[in-house]
Amino acid sequence: MDKRLHDRKFVRTFFTTPTAESGADDSAKKLRSAIELRGMQAPDVWVPDNEDATAPNMRDEGAENIAEVVAEKGDDFPGEIHPRVVWHRDSPETRYKGFQHMLEIADPENGAVENIDGFVIPEVGDIDDWKKADEFITIVENEYDLEEGSLAMSVIIESGSAELAMGKLREEMGKADNNLERLFLLVDGEVDYTKDMRAITPTGALPEWKELRHNTSRAASAAGCIAVDGPFDDIRDVEGYHDRITANNAMGMLGIWSLTPGQVVEANQSPLPPQDGYWTIEADGRTVELTEEDGVQVYNGDRIELEKEGDTYELEIGSEELQLSEEELVEELVDLTAYVPSMDDIVDSMEEFEAAKEAGKGAIAMTRATTVSIDGVEIDISSDRMWDEATYQAMMAPVALFQDVYENRPDQHDDLAELYSEDVVERAMEVGN
Amino acid sequence: MDKRLHDRKFVRTFFTTPTAESGADDSAKKLRSAIELRGMQAPDVWVPDNEDATAPNMRDEGAENIAEVVAEKGDDFPGEIHPRVVWHRDSPETRYKGFQHMLEIADPENGAVENIDGFVIPEVGDIDDWKKADEFITIVENEYDLEEGSLAMSVIIESGSAELAMGKLREEMGKADNNLERLFLLVDGEVDYTKDMRAITPTGALPEWKELRHNTSRAASAAGCIAVDGPFDDIRDVEGYHDRITANNAMGMLGIWSLTPGQVVEANQSPLPPQDGYWTIEADGRTVELTEEDGVQVYNGDRIELEKEGDTYELEIGSEELQLSEEELVEELVDLTAYVPSMDDIVDSMEEFEAAKEAGKGAIAMTRATTVSIDGVEIDISSDRMWDEATYQAMMAPVALFQDVYENRPDQHDDLAELYSEDVVERAMEVGN
Amino acid sequence: MDKRLHDRKFVRTFFTTPTAESGADDSAKKLRSAIELRGMQAPDVWVPDNEDATAPNMRDEGAENIAEVVAEKGDDFPGEIHPRVVWHRDSPETRYKGFQHMLEIADPENGAVENIDGFVIPEVGDIDDWKKADEFITIVENEYDLEEGSLAMSVIIESGSAELAMGKLREEMGKADNNLERLFLLVDGEVDYTKDMRAITPTGALPEWKELRHNTSRAASAAGCIAVDGPFDDIRDVEGYHDRITANNAMGMLGIWSLTPGQVVEANQSPLPPQDGYWTIEADGRTVELTEEDGVQVYNGDRIELEKEGDTYELEIGSEELQLSEEELVEELVDLTAYVPSMDDIVDSMEEFEAAKEAGKGAIAMTRATTVSIDGVEIDISSDRMWDEATYQAMMAPVALFQDVYENRPDQHDDLAELYSEDVVERAMEVGN
Repeated sequence: MDKRLHDRKFVRTFFTTPTAESGADDSAKKLRSAIELRGMQAPDVWVPDNEDATAPNMRDEGAENIAEVVAEKGDDFPGEIHPRVVWHRDSPETRYKGFQHMLEIADPENGAVENIDGFVIPEVGDIDDWKKADEFITIVENEYDLEEGSLAMSVIIESGSAELAMGKLREEMGKADNNLERLFLLVDGEVDYTKDMRAITPTGALPEWKELRHNTSRAASAAGCIAVDGPFDDIRDVEGYHDRITANNAMGMLGIWSLTPGQVVEANQSPLPPQDGYWTIEADGRTVELTEEDGVQVYNGDRIELEKEGDTYELEIGSEELQLSEEELVEELVDLTAYVPSMDDIVDSMEEFEAAKEAGKGAIAMTRATTVSIDGVEIDISSDRMWDEATYQAMMAPVALFQDVYENRPDQHDDLAELYSEDVVERAMEVGN
Repeated sequence: MDKRLHDRKFVRTFFTTPTAESGADDSAKKLRSAIELRGMQAPDVWVPDNEDATAPNMRDEGAENIAEVVAEKGDDFPGEIHPRVVWHRDSPETRYKGFQHMLEIADPENGAVENIDGFVIPEVGDIDDWKKADEFITIVENEYDLEEGSLAMSVIIESGSAELAMGKLREEMGKADNNLERLFLLVDGEVDYTKDMRAITPTGALPEWKELRHNTSRAASAAGCIAVDGPFDDIRDVEGYHDRITANNAMGMLGIWSLTPGQVVEANQSPLPPQDGYWTIEADGRTVELTEEDGVQVYNGDRIELEKEGDTYELEIGSEELQLSEEELVEELVDLTAYVPSMDDIVDSMEEFEAAKEAGKGAIAMTRATTVSIDGVEIDISSDRMWDEATYQAMMAPVALFQDVYENRPDQHDDLAELYSEDVVERAMEVGN
Repeated sequence: MDKRLHDRKFVRTFFTTPTAESGADDSAKKLRSAIELRGMQAPDVWVPDNEDATAPNMRDEGAENIAEVVAEKGDDFPGEIHPRVVWHRDSPETRYKGFQHMLEIADPENGAVENIDGFVIPEVGDIDDWKKADEFITIVENEYDLEEGSLAMSVIIESGSAELAMGKLREEMGKADNNLERLFLLVDGEVDYTKDMRAITPTGALPEWKELRHNTSRAASAAGCIAVDGPFDDIRDVEGYHDRITANNAMGMLGIWSLTPGQVVEANQSPLPPQDGYWTIEADGRTVELTEEDGVQVYNGDRIELEKEGDTYELEIGSEELQLSEEELVEELVDLTAYVPSMDDIVDSMEEFEAAKEAGKGAIAMTRATTVSIDGVEIDISSDRMWDEATYQAMMAPVALFQDVYENRPDQHDDLAELYSEDVVERAMEVGN
């Protein structure tokens, strides 16, 4: 199952677009605009959204619009295309409507199907409900002489029963009576999930749903799928979106929904290692980036104060004062600081470990040292980390993501070459292979 | 499964009372007192507790007391009545004793059974253990010519195996050989769960068990049951109890155990939206309520300081100083503040969205604006939130809860009318239908 | 299932040692050194590690070394011995190699098998993969005329599929076609798990994986196994290791991996109650231990300030100032402080409850009182906690752990007698029986 069944091993971005809007002279205007996106603004997976983003009475026209626009411009779109159709675990009427829309979109006479990579099914319930959608897609494939299983199926997890269903995928995929191997993305839908769980917050803000995200990421890992987080509503809040992505990545959820091309750019870049490494310090509850000045890492904030008094040091963190010897101060600073490695640093470390392995060593110590300056007082710090095969494999994740992006998204080569130097790109593509 | 199988769609309060105490001239004294509770002091579910709250040698008498007191006064009690009987996954002796107590309590000759809504089974293990309890209840029903499935069954989740069993409910309910559709409440019992998990904390305080609560809430959502949290021991700590309820609600767990009528009042009110909306601000790690003075929201604490210096502002949060332009200050304050809407506000927003939907719009921006004052400096802030169908549905939860309470608890109408104006009550009962 | 199927009910420490190193004149040097460990430096479970800690080309020799060293000195080793062999859910070649190593280590001709308690299987996948390892161990047992099921099997949970498999143990153990009752330890392996989940953190630090640890602890509780956390890399960071153990214990995970004898000492002692009880205070986000001076608990830090002003008090916590009456101050201090009971205190409380139970009481209030001094101002505080049977049972966990250690580890009696007085040891061994 560790082998992914699809071309993409990673999906960073899941970008939705309304399929038909009344009032405009061209109801497909937004589709036509989105399919022109290229480079960092283009998502890994584009989702013409014939469900929530489109008004119910516009959805038949929406299905036609998808077929028309993808037929025209789908050949040149750099990402995959997975339209979302209507579906509901509690409504046979909605499910039948979704089936009809899939038949329309995939009809070879409309000329779009070669560029339709799969469908996104929202509001699924337990695993038997997933099978109903799978069966409709099988019928679509059979009807149009497509290979069984060639259309991917992604689901939106927005009910407790769908969350539980994810625990059963390994048992159900591969059974003779379904084609669930077509499963591709497991996408959390936190707004509807909140409704289904009947959760209430005082301000109406969305709960964190950390357990849901863990369970989605785990299911993706266990069943060879890809985990994607739901929409982040506050479009202006770039920092908040970035923080959410960072938190998701630490759970193995490397993809996220994007509502605007701006969010697409952010979500395409966030999981990749930075161009330049940097140091941070824990300043009384906040993580603050240090500023490099002539090779020294300088803290310029007000939350930490440091003074040398004879042989000892007075370190003030927030309202707390510590009297420390030089050795104790170094130890405290080692604990407070952290280094965020650049792509270059990561490749360096991996190559160093590969060389050690060839020389017959199973584990080596990687040293990280610098000089930290607070209130003009400069202190040298240094720390070791043991690397063994498992560390090496775990550090491979951001590099493997980069390699997957580079192979599948030639339209982003320029942006990546600008972000990293040519040399780093070349080494990153070779390491681990 | 989304359809609840019981009269109550929501249960806020689960109130336990000892069934028999030795020494008193009337061993059923506490039962007689509890069954007289009305209004906000009366729980949604009352649990005459013939298990832990009653000494082992008093439990036979306790079962008789339950039958006697419910026969006398059960007709007038405003909540449901679900006695807790003894049970243990590891003890056939205890399970047989529980069966005998159920036979006693439900015996039509004792005249209580019309007002017994079901039984609470503690210390259950895996799903097959649940089925044993279900079978005993089926036999009780058959013996006394009650309809099969008419007595509800609630369980206390206080073991790892019971937690895992909750993931199997959807597969087991509806099978021909059981009547598990009678399942009603899934109640966490954290003290015994701590024992079963062999968890140790330095102070002996209960662990948070956040994953357990999530899994209980999820199972309730998936299997059409209702999730209830366990007892909160520190009876004097009203604020702590309220905070626990707020945290539970954000997980979809809207019910909680109550040990005293005072806790019942708090737990009956906490999940309902407040009468008046209010603003809060994040003050260096604490959420503080702002005070309204003439339409301005004033911060009176010491954790945030604000000063205007020419064209710029100096904002101090804890030990951190920020120099900001007016625009940056507004942005910072939008991030720091939040609005807790009143019932009235929620109904307003829902009606506004309903009107927009009728006018053919799928999504509208809801604006929230105010003036914030810190150290005498006044700043206007404003933010938008996009509402679509999913937002509307998610915001329906507190209103649906209110509607359910209003329909099922006529004895609380006066309290609700006092809490909200008549007009708000009327609009809240109509919205969303 | 609550009955543990093994001699040890608790395992605090899981200590790994490389089995063969090239270059040294004696490749088994580290094994020979580790098997001499005694007392607090000796682990509950010792794991000669023929997987990651040993270079691939040294593992055949490693298997021979294990047999040789255990044959020589295994009789005297105070803990259990469970070698780790190679295994991988995705590689039949690796699995066959692991089988061959087990055959070698357990061969009676090598004279080690009487002191081999079981095997540790890393990199398992879903439950059917666990069964393959179980089957190989069954064949080993049969080949060498050992009783079926007599060799324990422990697994390393380092994939999403293995995490899911833990939810199926109750259904699979006891089936006629396997001997999964041999399962002993469920050990998290967070580095490889991070790789399998494809998680990324900016600094390369390991994610917390709190849900994984909960699920492991829950599975151990449900299936009669023992939960053990993975390695803590930063060997110098004793405080960090201690904090991790405390957090694990609150989840019911009482065991942890140890990489050095120093870590073994820390992990053997951390879960046991302290020799002397002490008070702590929440000082603006940090928990600080108070210093006892003549029966008064003194706060000496800078984060809290207290001044008496006439009839009222000014309490400053970080940047927040509170004006309080004496009553309000006492309440605030009750909330801020906590008491960490000593083994002696716990035994006292348990005996007090046992006496009350014999006298026919189901619940009693335990009072905890002291005098707190801040900036020279002394305040008397006191709080009650209700104890019933469930509280008593939950407080039994650290005592039961102590009793298990005392019974199974005579080599630690001296250390325990030094840690606690003889008298406390004696009472702790009697309570609850």
